[in-house]
Amino acid sequence: MATQPVNKTVHTFDKARLEALLNRRFFYAPAFEIYGGVAGLYDYGPPGSSLQANIIAEWRRHFIIHDHMLELDTTIMTPATVFETSGHVARFADWMVKDTQTGDVLRADHLVRNVLEARLASDREARGNAEHPANENDKKKKKKNVKNTPVRLDDDKVKEYERTLAQMDNFSGPELGELCREHGIRNPDTDNEVGEPQQFNLMFASSIGPTGQHPGYLRPETAQGHFLNFSRLLEFNNGRVPFASAQIGRSFRNEISPRAGLLRVREFTMGEIEHFVDPNDKRHPRFSEYRHVVLSMLDRNVQLQGLSTVTPMTIGEAVDKGIVANETLGYFLGRIQLFLVHIGIDPKRLRFRQHMGNEMAHYATDCWDAEIENATGWTECVGCADRAAYDLSVHAARTGHALVVREALKEPVVSEREVAEFNKKALGQKLGRDGGVVQKIVGEMDQRGLERVKDALLAHGSATISADGREITLTPDLVTIQRKTFKQSIREFTPNVIEPSFGFGRILYTLLEHSFWSREQDIERGVLSLPPVVAPTKVLIVPLSAKEEFDPLVRQVSTQLRKAGVFSRVDDSNTSIGKRYARNDELGTPFGITIDFACMSLTERDTTEQLIGPIDDVIAVVTDLVQGTLDWSTARQRLLVYDGVQAVD
Amino acid sequence: MATQPVNKTVHTFDKARLEALLNRRFFYAPAFEIYGGVAGLYDYGPPGSSLQANIIAEWRRHFIIHDHMLELDTTIMTPATVFETSGHVARFADWMVKDTQTGDVLRADHLVRNVLEARLASDREARGNAEHPANENDKKKKKKNVKNTPVRLDDDKVKEYERTLAQMDNFSGPELGELCREHGIRNPDTDNEVGEPQQFNLMFASSIGPTGQHPGYLRPETAQGHFLNFSRLLEFNNGRVPFASAQIGRSFRNEISPRAGLLRVREFTMGEIEHFVDPNDKRHPRFSEYRHVVLSMLDRNVQLQGLSTVTPMTIGEAVDKGIVANETLGYFLGRIQLFLVHIGIDPKRLRFRQHMGNEMAHYATDCWDAEIENATGWTECVGCADRAAYDLSVHAARTGHALVVREALKEPVVSEREVAEFNKKALGQKLGRDGGVVQKIVGEMDQRGLERVKDALLAHGSATISADGREITLTPDLVTIQRKTFKQSIREFTPNVIEPSFGFGRILYTLLEHSFWSREQDIERGVLSLPPVVAPTKVLIVPLSAKEEFDPLVRQVSTQLRKAGVFSRVDDSNTSIGKRYARNDELGTPFGITIDFACMSLTERDTTEQLIGPIDDVIAVVTDLVQGTLDWSTARQRLLVYDGVQAVD
Repeated sequence: MATQPVNKTVHTFDKARLEALLNRRFFYAPAFEIYGGVAGLYDYGPPGSSLQANIIAEWRRHFIIHDHMLELDTTIMTPATVFETSGHVARFADWMVKDTQTGDVLRADHLVRNVLEARLASDREARGNAEHPANENDKKKKKKNVKNTPVRLDDDKVKEYERTLAQMDNFSGPELGELCREHGIRNPDTDNEVGEPQQFNLMFASSIGPTGQHPGYLRPETAQGHFLNFSRLLEFNNGRVPFASAQIGRSFRNEISPRAGLLRVREFTMGEIEHFVDPNDKRHPRFSEYRHVVLSMLDRNVQLQGLSTVTPMTIGEAVDKGIVANETLGYFLGRIQLFLVHIGIDPKRLRFRQHMGNEMAHYATDCWDAEIENATGWTECVGCADRAAYDLSVHAARTGHALVVREALKEPVVSEREVAEFNKKALGQKLGRDGGVVQKIVGEMDQRGLERVKDALLAHGSATISADGREITLTPDLVTIQRKTFKQSIREFTPNVIEPSFGFGRILYTLLEHSFWSREQDIERGVLSLPPVVAPTKVLIVPLSAKEEFDPLVRQVSTQLRKAGVFSRVDDSNTSIGKRYARNDELGTPFGITIDFACMSLTERDTTEQLIGPIDDVIAVVTDLVQGTLDWSTARQRLLVYDGVQAVD
Repeated sequence: MATQPVNKTVHTFDKARLEALLNRRFFYAPAFEIYGGVAGLYDYGPPGSSLQANIIAEWRRHFIIHDHMLELDTTIMTPATVFETSGHVARFADWMVKDTQTGDVLRADHLVRNVLEARLASDREARGNAEHPANENDKKKKKKNVKNTPVRLDDDKVKEYERTLAQMDNFSGPELGELCREHGIRNPDTDNEVGEPQQFNLMFASSIGPTGQHPGYLRPETAQGHFLNFSRLLEFNNGRVPFASAQIGRSFRNEISPRAGLLRVREFTMGEIEHFVDPNDKRHPRFSEYRHVVLSMLDRNVQLQGLSTVTPMTIGEAVDKGIVANETLGYFLGRIQLFLVHIGIDPKRLRFRQHMGNEMAHYATDCWDAEIENATGWTECVGCADRAAYDLSVHAARTGHALVVREALKEPVVSEREVAEFNKKALGQKLGRDGGVVQKIVGEMDQRGLERVKDALLAHGSATISADGREITLTPDLVTIQRKTFKQSIREFTPNVIEPSFGFGRILYTLLEHSFWSREQDIERGVLSLPPVVAPTKVLIVPLSAKEEFDPLVRQVSTQLRKAGVFSRVDDSNTSIGKRYARNDELGTPFGITIDFACMSLTERDTTEQLIGPIDDVIAVVTDLVQGTLDWSTARQRLLVYDGVQAVD
């Protein structure tokens, strides 16, 4: 960040005012708004598009370039067979319940969570210790609520609700139905009963080609595009693991009733990394560089006790203690933390939560979410799953294409084992059709079975085996069993996959919340303290008046900044300088250059402090500030601090 | 381009060899390949993703940043009502015919074109003047063709076929059906007759939400996302036109039978600009900077004569003569030409073709395509349409939201006109129900009608009007007509839209064709002469051997290049230097740095010429080369030319 905002006051956060700002400045808006909108679909306007593009550019730099990942761009429309194999057709679903009278559809876990949380809030109010009683959002909720009188619950009930809520993500559909019945949970909008939870598949379905015979789905994640291209990627990497592929792209989930702005949408841009690794060696060569990174961790066991206490811990210690399963998973958790803080997420509102057993996606063996706190609670913004060999194995089995690594062993592995050899002619002559039965039974015997037959043939000159209850006698002229030596020079294995998966819309929204504050002297004037690295516009150029005589200087400054790679905007509108700066506070523009006849001044957004100096010096300083090679306190030594008051009116 | 390849020979172009290279190096590959693939869907691998990303980055710089366009990122999934309004549900369709026996589906215009072209080729062969008799593709086509013996056509027939082909894009469905009957056109794969052409809508359909009651489509273009946000964009631009919005994103078209690689796909990344302009003033402030740009033009009239002769012309002259309708359309055609040549398209294989009447999309009033020649013929890669006020008008009418510009007039427009005023009480008393009839008829009169009534009332004290054959008499106590003055200070209008629309996949593929050649001394060694600005990797770093002692120097060079913003790759594999350079010829890497004990050398891809010098000098030179501020002939003066032969073996 450019500097700590000196007059920032976190407790003044007002979600409604932030949302009004984002809407007014067209960061994003409901898609198809003039048609009444569609829940869960949003369009990004110029500042939102630019903020998202900058976050993605940093992501590309921080992950793809840093680790030489192989970038991919695969298709969204996918034939149904792919998702049948991957398990998504059968299992990528949420539980929904229907209002028994109106037929309205609600997501079952959200219904249970919302009703229990509302009852607990009502209980707190009845006990006279409601939190944030004057909060705008609470007031609105209360208005919509059917029961307005606070209801006090038994102490046991309170504990039971809290325990249930802490394990909310762990319940199956039938369990959610049981919770509805047990606690008399009804549709809060109508007070009607709800039916039994049913599964609803979250993939959008379509049909490919003109005949209607080829069903397809829109991908709900980019991952399958990586897995299906595994052999090509491996070849591109000269046949060696570990390596990672990465993809930035759109995915789709037909959410049941999305209502949380950018936090739960039906179409979203994600960044996914698939790191392919030897299942026997999940160490990471650069883990030692990051083992000192401290994360706030919330593991599975703590949650199963009904608690949500985080423990600060270095990622090195977490791996050493087995809380995080391996170095590669740990490496990515550490790098995720560094990325999020770098783009402006408040580290005090970031935690890493491990998934509980029933909560994990069907393909995962372990999973940690980077959760970021915002006005609606803790929200999963990055998932980091160990998908093991699941996906590659199922696609290989279905298609018959081996999706494996073939590794030349430095020292061939030499092993010995018993092998049966049959005298087929003698078997046919002596046993007839039983000859085939013998070949099948002996051929499928394990080493202990073969040793027993071998010993019997040696000791007694014959051995008996049983087939369908009958006994067949073998003699050395029919079958011989010998110890042979085998030399294996290639090791073949299906790699495991560690998958960090980022939802850029959720990160973008929580970043906006964390960046938002209001100036004490002007509560209506919102400020977005976006770090220069992601801010949509880096520098605002303001000529002191719209007079034409400023034009050549404005063009000169603008051109010099563009050549230095700094994105600036000129505001030569007729409004006052103060209004122009206020507009750019709302757009999160970190620096302003005011061009006067006499001098040029540089203003820092968060402190509104001004420095003045000759044109070339100011441009050099602002370029270094934007590139992050200079901080404001050092900038104050390179230019003259100006303590006038007229810049902000 | 870095330099003209000295030993490039265009006539050796071999599509099969290029495609093998692109497949081997994973530029792109059929999506879902291990599942047998799906026609029209492709995945981009690491070099293809990178090439596409670089083309898009240049596009953003050349169009969005150059003209301060407002960037958007809108949703793909769209409720059906939007495309009902825009006309896509009714009219965004192609004509298909079914094989009467097998039910196979063919695109009607492609069928007619392919059959007539095959007959003309057969005729040329029969006349003994077949072109490219040894062409690999022709050989393959011949094998598949049912009739192998060349058939000579009448001279009149040849002319008729040629005339038909030149107007191919102008035929309606029934006309295509008529052509099939008239020329006995059958399915070439089965020799069966085909049925009547039927329309097939090209949009992929889906359903939004869990109830199945909200039909949706995947967008076939990004344009509607701009139009629906018009009011927000206008406000962001302080209420002023002209301005342009721009969007880069995925779109979908459910093509009937895609068979042409990246040239006809079902899912593609496009870049679209919507330039909103005053319909009364389509001048462009920067047109004069580009009026000297020369384009190869093929206008509508030439095509309707059955010809395809291009005329080279400056865009200034084309606008002056009215061949291109206005400056804004001309501005974009010129800028499109400059962009395509800048990224490496051969200007001799680029033309601008105007659409004929029936060929234009339903929303367009004029349209020019930038067509690029490749092995399959001339392919539309950029469309530049004047959509007039079509889209904004239909969405405004459907939703009731005004999508207009309100412009404060500098001088209010003062106008006078006759206005009727009614004495409603007297009308009711005297005429009863006819009072209403009078108000309606007089209220709807034009100025001449009102003047006639006014004159009659003045001259005779009464006037008669006719209503449903009856006559009604008016007197001054019932109605008075007076001349009044009106002052209009706001002008309200629906802007027109000029839309340049780019298909990045088609541009990428034709660029690869234009860049491909083989070295004379080694015909198997393909080279992609991609300009440094779009090449996936800019510099290959090759240590002379894999010995560890080179590692620190390799790291130093790699770090210095990264700091200079130059994307490099290290190849420290164990294969020979020559093989490593050959691999990078295929990847289109323009420069190579070989690190030896004694010195560092810089190799240019196309000439394979080598320069040597101290490490800092070589890095400075290669940085300037990649950034385009230095060409190779000047680079030769800054370093030492090395004329050894061992670099290419």
